[in-house]
Amino acid sequence: MKQITGGVTAAKGFYAASCEANIKYENRTDMALVYSEVPCRVAGVFTSNVVKAACVMWDKEIVAGGQTAQAVVVNSGIANACTGKQGYDCCEAVAQAAAEDLGISGKEVLVASTGVIGKQLPVDKMVAGVHRLTEAKEAGPDAGTRAAEAIMTTDTVSKQTAVQVEIGGRTVTVGGMCKGSGMIHPNMCTMLAFVTTDAAISRELLQKALSADVKDTFNMISVDGDTSTNDTLLVLANGLAGNEEITEEGEDYNRFLEALHLVNETLAKKMAGDGEGATALFEAKVIHARNKEDAKLLAKSVISSSLTKAAIFGHDANWGRILCAMGYSGAKFDPEKVELTVASKSGSIVLCKSGMEADYSEEEASRILKDEEVTVIIDMHDGDAKATAWGCDLSYDYVKINADYRS
Amino acid sequence: MKQITGGVTAAKGFYAASCEANIKYENRTDMALVYSEVPCRVAGVFTSNVVKAACVMWDKEIVAGGQTAQAVVVNSGIANACTGKQGYDCCEAVAQAAAEDLGISGKEVLVASTGVIGKQLPVDKMVAGVHRLTEAKEAGPDAGTRAAEAIMTTDTVSKQTAVQVEIGGRTVTVGGMCKGSGMIHPNMCTMLAFVTTDAAISRELLQKALSADVKDTFNMISVDGDTSTNDTLLVLANGLAGNEEITEEGEDYNRFLEALHLVNETLAKKMAGDGEGATALFEAKVIHARNKEDAKLLAKSVISSSLTKAAIFGHDANWGRILCAMGYSGAKFDPEKVELTVASKSGSIVLCKSGMEADYSEEEASRILKDEEVTVIIDMHDGDAKATAWGCDLSYDYVKINADYRS
Repeated sequence: MKQITGGVTAAKGFYAASCEANIKYENRTDMALVYSEVPCRVAGVFTSNVVKAACVMWDKEIVAGGQTAQAVVVNSGIANACTGKQGYDCCEAVAQAAAEDLGISGKEVLVASTGVIGKQLPVDKMVAGVHRLTEAKEAGPDAGTRAAEAIMTTDTVSKQTAVQVEIGGRTVTVGGMCKGSGMIHPNMCTMLAFVTTDAAISRELLQKALSADVKDTFNMISVDGDTSTNDTLLVLANGLAGNEEITEEGEDYNRFLEALHLVNETLAKKMAGDGEGATALFEAKVIHARNKEDAKLLAKSVISSSLTKAAIFGHDANWGRILCAMGYSGAKFDPEKVELTVASKSGSIVLCKSGMEADYSEEEASRILKDEEVTVIIDMHDGDAKATAWGCDLSYDYVKINADYRS
Repeated sequence: MKQITGGVTAAKGFYAASCEANIKYENRTDMALVYSEVPCRVAGVFTSNVVKAACVMWDKEIVAGGQTAQAVVVNSGIANACTGKQGYDCCEAVAQAAAEDLGISGKEVLVASTGVIGKQLPVDKMVAGVHRLTEAKEAGPDAGTRAAEAIMTTDTVSKQTAVQVEIGGRTVTVGGMCKGSGMIHPNMCTMLAFVTTDAAISRELLQKALSADVKDTFNMISVDGDTSTNDTLLVLANGLAGNEEITEEGEDYNRFLEALHLVNETLAKKMAGDGEGATALFEAKVIHARNKEDAKLLAKSVISSSLTKAAIFGHDANWGRILCAMGYSGAKFDPEKVELTVASKSGSIVLCKSGMEADYSEEEASRILKDEEVTVIIDMHDGDAKATAWGCDLSYDYVKINADYRS
């Protein structure tokens, strides 16, 4: 398996486009299209929030119905959440406009939105945007990059990745893009992520792979504990790689799962590291836990703790907050077995042994914590299970961004 | 029932003291004593964190054993958490020193600590502090106030309250003090709170009253979602009011419960309003919910949401974040029935009706949100249950305080 450049247009037969539709922002692109030249199997996971955006309801129907899909239309600026029937009608109008331009059915067009909650989307601007997108669609990495840029909100960088893997003697490509930043504490998956692949795989196995992998990737990140109304992760598989269709679990399925996992994990980490106001990616790696479930609870609790996140921002080796966050995670464990190590590319240092303070230099620990990617290794000395979660530090800028996000 | 001035020394027979023991801070008091001239029935609730401070383990044994207690020794600066056997031995030494001075048993002395996790308490300084406290103990409101000041960490104001109620023809007083600020997301109760009363009440009913009431008071506040290792709430009842001992539920019990509730609620609200970096007390009042449990989940989720808290700090009527936080609370509800109103002493305004944006003025809403106490009224239009939770806004200062708390 190898990492390649590109994102949603890396796999064969996928096109993308972006445009300035002036939905809410000015002087920047705010709509994107992903299009496949042939129909795709589609799998998706969506927010577990009771309050679901209109576009989530639209997409869930398509994914649950087992139809094929050929296009995704995305806008940033307004989330189309808490918008009632008018919001749903807008999804339909957008899908219908795209379908007519592309010569496909409206039910083959997925839609996604991100931005402020409670405002109605301007249908006319959205439909006008759709026409420009379908006209502008292109193959190649630049089109994918522009699409990744158009879906950003408070993100500071666009996020995409792609990998290639050999399956049944054919080169299969899996690529994706996502946006994150705030309101990130995915329960089914995170805000918006789109993965495309030319793998030939049955819809059932595509959904199975996605549902399994999301638990170790998108569901293991958090920026602020807020589970969005719009979380959507879609995977489109158009089969153009020409591999024999994957219809059962086995070697081919496992290779596809590995590629999907690498794309999902890379996108999820990019999202965590670019959390609103973040200055560092904060990784918690739990090892030697009693079982997988506890390992996940522990890792996620640590990266979600406001106090720990603030300490990371301050480069302060305040390991007591880490142990405290583990203690309220819901996992059962013996605090007196716990060993905590912080690590980054500048080195590593043990802060806590047998649940008590280790003999370490605060200066050395602080130097290690100054890096852009910081890991805390949590050794439970209690079994074989492990899990990793990703978050970011809590900075002044998180507050600044969210105290006046709408204004 | 009437509110009176004072705190832990308001009830008959209670004394308090404070001293500078130089545990961690300099030039401020950092140890406090609460003492009753006669033995007290004692009830307590403690943190649900798996990682429990040594003092929590010490106190739990006393409360569970059903012994009487006559004194509480508290220090700020170091939490005595993650300190192993050495930490527990320190509790014993402190209790023993106090017991000898006061002519009581070591097992009648409760201890509590708050501050940084993972550091050992200096036993010599603690014991020297105990001697000064037992010598300096005094009746009267000033001694209570000084005790409340000595237990502060990042609190900006000391917190105490007291009420009087007639029970069986006698005046019963209930008073208390607490400290809060950060690592506040109580699961059994919050960081440190001490309530004293001269009511005569059986130990069983005292514990029953406390365990019931904490669910609607201390367990309904949050500053940052972090459940501390040290959360301790103790109630000492010395019986000196001379009422006929309350040994069963009935009118007397209910009157005592009302007084206890008012003290607990007042202390809990003070703690939330003085959360680290807070500029406002943020109250979420859920009404017309399907059931009490859902009402509590909804209220607590809203005041715990980082995004909503940041919006309150920015005086931004970003009601979509409130609905979003309700959606991931775990409560089941129909978003299309929800009505949201913000209110403060400057007025009130409906932001959301039937789950969608109401017609309101952003300027007017922002003006209402500028007050020091802000309430969001969440009308579920779905039943008769209600619940209230208290939190605070999320400000730059929260980050500042916690990025360099230890340094």
